[in-house]
Amino acid sequence: MRPTVTFWFDLASTYSYLSAMRIEAEAETRGIAVSWKPFLLGPIFAAQGWSNSPFNLYPAKGRYMLRDMERRCAALGLPLQWPSTPLPANSIRAARLAIAALETTDKGSDLCRMIYHMQFGEGADIADADTLQEALHRVGLSDDLHQVARSPELKPLLRANTDQAQAAGIFGAPSFTIGDELFWGDDHLEAAFDWAVAKQD
Amino acid sequence: MRPTVTFWFDLASTYSYLSAMRIEAEAETRGIAVSWKPFLLGPIFAAQGWSNSPFNLYPAKGRYMLRDMERRCAALGLPLQWPSTPLPANSIRAARLAIAALETTDKGSDLCRMIYHMQFGEGADIADADTLQEALHRVGLSDDLHQVARSPELKPLLRANTDQAQAAGIFGAPSFTIGDELFWGDDHLEAAFDWAVAKQD
Repeated sequence: MRPTVTFWFDLASTYSYLSAMRIEAEAETRGIAVSWKPFLLGPIFAAQGWSNSPFNLYPAKGRYMLRDMERRCAALGLPLQWPSTPLPANSIRAARLAIAALETTDKGSDLCRMIYHMQFGEGADIADADTLQEALHRVGLSDDLHQVARSPELKPLLRANTDQAQAAGIFGAPSFTIGDELFWGDDHLEAAFDWAVAKQD
Repeated sequence: MRPTVTFWFDLASTYSYLSAMRIEAEAETRGIAVSWKPFLLGPIFAAQGWSNSPFNLYPAKGRYMLRDMERRCAALGLPLQWPSTPLPANSIRAARLAIAALETTDKGSDLCRMIYHMQFGEGADIADADTLQEALHRVGLSDDLHQVARSPELKPLLRANTDQAQAAGIFGAPSFTIGDELFWGDDHLEAAFDWAVAKQD
């Protein structure tokens, strides 16, 4: 049994873009499996009394994030083009589609990476149905996935993931869990994998 | 001229303890100078509308910090014993004393490290005058420093540092600046030094 790192992300989360693009390579190196868990930060922020992203509520934090993302994308060799629409995007539709792809196809993580790439590498608005349609096509998934995402079996899973995230003590994204052990932030991705490897021995 | 990394810290900040204990070794390795800048997070949090530390306002964040500090202290080989008094401690007196030591002696950073060690390595309350007295003695500084700290020349410097921190866009501690470039968090200490080295070339 390979140990599993659960990767919790919101498709509108800037720092989750960094992790989504590098987590599978890190997992491969360490012989660890990754479980991709899309959730929504909105309800978690709301439970903390925030009506918006902390990057909008606290301008100094927001300015820092924009600059920090520039530096980190440059260091990782990732393209960065900010969408012209306000951040964070409404990611509900993208998250439902991602869950449908993760649950019913073998291209779920490909779709998540493509959505991140189009949003932060090309500046597309992921709240726009056309963007999601294009993402599906680029990874070779069928339009039928929209229907699947809205099905009574799959639609509740986004709420369930978000509730699980909150129960796990998650307060931001990306987060990583190994059992009860929680790591927050792209810069703790390596520490999460170190933990998973140590648990394995 | 060696480039300088400015190290911004609040003596009550848990994550700043990690940086204080390792920053000079990192600086030595890279041939970089460190400028120690004590400031107060309180007024900066207040300007963001927070009446308390985010670790107290947002319990999930607070619980995470306690666990994360345990893991990181273990990884760095640093002792960790939480004070029995509520966090964060009132650090005004400690910060004034640190500024006096930094400005008028060559043991300023020794005193800062000792205050952190007593607080988070031994569980002492740094708002307690006896703790600060003991810290002075342990690093071989004179009691006269209390007077110096309250002098009209030095007393305003803590407010000035805090104003400077806010003007630099600082919203948490530890932070590191190289010119206008800001890095936040102990886990970005290396990135700050990388930046300082690159600027040097």
